[in-house]
Amino acid sequence: MKLKTPLIILNVKAYKESMGKRDLKLAKICEEVAKETGVNIAYCPQQVDLAWVANEVEIPCLAQHVDALDPGSKTGWTVLESIKEAGAIGTLVNHSEHRMKIADIDVIVEKSKELGLCTVICTNNVVVSRAAAVMKPYSIAIEPPALIGSGIPVSKAEPEIVSDSVNAIKELNRDTVVLCGAGISTGEDVRESLKLGAEGVLLASGVVKAKDPKRTLLDLASGIF
Amino acid sequence: MKLKTPLIILNVKAYKESMGKRDLKLAKICEEVAKETGVNIAYCPQQVDLAWVANEVEIPCLAQHVDALDPGSKTGWTVLESIKEAGAIGTLVNHSEHRMKIADIDVIVEKSKELGLCTVICTNNVVVSRAAAVMKPYSIAIEPPALIGSGIPVSKAEPEIVSDSVNAIKELNRDTVVLCGAGISTGEDVRESLKLGAEGVLLASGVVKAKDPKRTLLDLASGIF
Amino acid sequence: MKLKTPLIILNVKAYKESMGKRDLKLAKICEEVAKETGVNIAYCPQQVDLAWVANEVEIPCLAQHVDALDPGSKTGWTVLESIKEAGAIGTLVNHSEHRMKIADIDVIVEKSKELGLCTVICTNNVVVSRAAAVMKPYSIAIEPPALIGSGIPVSKAEPEIVSDSVNAIKELNRDTVVLCGAGISTGEDVRESLKLGAEGVLLASGVVKAKDPKRTLLDLASGIF
Amino acid sequence: MKLKTPLIILNVKAYKESMGKRDLKLAKICEEVAKETGVNIAYCPQQVDLAWVANEVEIPCLAQHVDALDPGSKTGWTVLESIKEAGAIGTLVNHSEHRMKIADIDVIVEKSKELGLCTVICTNNVVVSRAAAVMKPYSIAIEPPALIGSGIPVSKAEPEIVSDSVNAIKELNRDTVVLCGAGISTGEDVRESLKLGAEGVLLASGVVKAKDPKRTLLDLASGIF
Repeated sequence: MKLKTPLIILNVKAYKESMGKRDLKLAKICEEVAKETGVNIAYCPQQVDLAWVANEVEIPCLAQHVDALDPGSKTGWTVLESIKEAGAIGTLVNHSEHRMKIADIDVIVEKSKELGLCTVICTNNVVVSRAAAVMKPYSIAIEPPALIGSGIPVSKAEPEIVSDSVNAIKELNRDTVVLCGAGISTGEDVRESLKLGAEGVLLASGVVKAKDPKRTLLDLASGIF
Repeated sequence: MKLKTPLIILNVKAYKESMGKRDLKLAKICEEVAKETGVNIAYCPQQVDLAWVANEVEIPCLAQHVDALDPGSKTGWTVLESIKEAGAIGTLVNHSEHRMKIADIDVIVEKSKELGLCTVICTNNVVVSRAAAVMKPYSIAIEPPALIGSGIPVSKAEPEIVSDSVNAIKELNRDTVVLCGAGISTGEDVRESLKLGAEGVLLASGVVKAKDPKRTLLDLASGIF
Repeated sequence: MKLKTPLIILNVKAYKESMGKRDLKLAKICEEVAKETGVNIAYCPQQVDLAWVANEVEIPCLAQHVDALDPGSKTGWTVLESIKEAGAIGTLVNHSEHRMKIADIDVIVEKSKELGLCTVICTNNVVVSRAAAVMKPYSIAIEPPALIGSGIPVSKAEPEIVSDSVNAIKELNRDTVVLCGAGISTGEDVRESLKLGAEGVLLASGVVKAKDPKRTLLDLASGIF
Repeated sequence: MKLKTPLIILNVKAYKESMGKRDLKLAKICEEVAKETGVNIAYCPQQVDLAWVANEVEIPCLAQHVDALDPGSKTGWTVLESIKEAGAIGTLVNHSEHRMKIADIDVIVEKSKELGLCTVICTNNVVVSRAAAVMKPYSIAIEPPALIGSGIPVSKAEPEIVSDSVNAIKELNRDTVVLCGAGISTGEDVRESLKLGAEGVLLASGVVKAKDPKRTLLDLASGIF
């Protein structure tokens, strides 16, 4: 299984609304919407639910984070080999809530390539997006931290950060998929993001905290063209 | 499900030998040995396997680590509520490979009590064991870091650190279960540990890297009296 | 030079108002007030100013933080041996803005004793104060984080946390000096703190951001009896 | 005062041999050698000695590390504004012994430009050097971690990592000064480094632990052409 574009990635973070059974339920809803609409949806379960959820759904699952360590005596840390065996096809890297050291990002991107895993590096501005592009990850998701969880879509609040990142990243590395995130919750937000050159979106609270997550996902999927 | 003493806790860390299917298989072996011998065995799966393994076995499972955070927008971090919903009955805290801040240990112990979860605080010497005892955790596991993974059992190399910790901890808090660990791999090591006053052992490589983990676990269980 | 009680410790943090020349000036004001009033005042300069300020004043200086490392190839980290040679007589440990791992606090307290340095462990509640007392530091400063920089003195807002900490700490270790902090800015706050059993105060913004730091320090000193 | 090339930067880390009076003495030796030979030498004192040493010598001083924080209530942390007021003209960033988050490196480089400070980003390989170059720092120092403190000069052990980094960095950003480090201790090492395209060297133990630091520095300076 591989990620395909255009793409919606749902990161359920450590929300109360996405733990345990509710984590699996959200993953199943993503799977349904993906099947019904034909839109590519990937899912990032809570870390402790990763193997469990990945075993139960047929859409691609990603870890929310991986530590830049080799397998071994690393109590409580998560290594790339473990997420692969857990059924994940890759991982978010350097999320704004889990920033990483530059040398560690490099290690994870390199090792992911060897292991056949996808990396989605989260970045906060155009300069960091360019620095990430140099490492040739599968994808870069540009997310201005101030807008995360705000309900104000980056595509409306800071459209130029999306289009500038697309240009900057593609100039350095044509093959890296550019996503955007922060405040995305409607089909219109998705449509605007794609118009700005993004090939998909990364989102969380917009779906996790929605009254009717399936309806929200169907709306989001409608923005993919 | 609650932890009972005397007790063997197997922490499988992030070893190559305990990932994915091998993680579940090791948990199943622990379950078998617990049933066959009547000895209490608890299991700490790799973090991303926690919900999956906890759903498949009937012995108690613990997280290897939990972050001192409340549920919410905490991408890639693990909160107590998530491990509870994943089916864990508690967590290791402050393992020597994942040391924690003193204020965070306090937060996790307090919150675990509210949530009905068990905490096993790992400590490195008698002074830190006493400091941990003040927080009244379910259990303290004394493990001299230099002996971890060494194959030299703490019960033989530093018996006084075990007996001194038992005395120091019990003096401050009668109810805290004292475990010991580091280098434990045989029934004799377990027997010696109990003689020194420990109520069980915490171990990892001795089983995970054993040629025949079941035979090793049966031997370990034979040391429980 | 040793710390003596009753005691006022001024921690100037990384405030704009206490950098460079203003750091030395504040230290000189503390020295003046100490001489004029006979009150014991210790000063924690900004880290990069430590040797410079300690060389210029005759009141005791403390580092704001020290890393639990031995001297060596540790670029950008601060070790106990370095602060001693810089002229400091000790260090704050585990400030709420710089929390430390429990095993590291133990290392620093032990090593400080060998080097003849004083440690002032900052704690956030009674339980953590007790855990710190077990390590037998020179002093423990209880500071409820929510009140730090608030202008609301701990002595008024949460008097029982001060008196309970004093009792808990003294019960475990008679010799540890108990200080309190958070929101302290007047002589009355100091007086109330001492009445609650504290042997001094730890403060920062109340002086650093005062319009007339000398007048504020004189007022604070007037609260010492 | 500004850094000029070709350049030798001496980072004295947290070595026993470079604390307190020995820190100032080493800085004075660098100053002497700079005057006698006309070679540009910059000095990174121990963090707590920064203001003291920078006030006493006329060669440029750099901090060993700065935290990506604004001035304020940040006990024990070091901000750019503080090192500027301490007399430093810039800072090392992301040393292999003090790795930083990618977003924090970006913040420090940007803010240093506003404050008129120089940043020297340390990198471990060609990819990370390219990622750093995108941020347009004053300088990048390529240092393969395995060779640091080894006595085996990077210029001999891995000459291609130096020349490849020079090419990669200059391609992205003509103006960034490229240094190399790790194992450098003789004039010949310096000469080889410059031949590979580096504009200077970053070194530590080669001088700090030398029997006769002045003689070693004179030899190093002789390699500058």
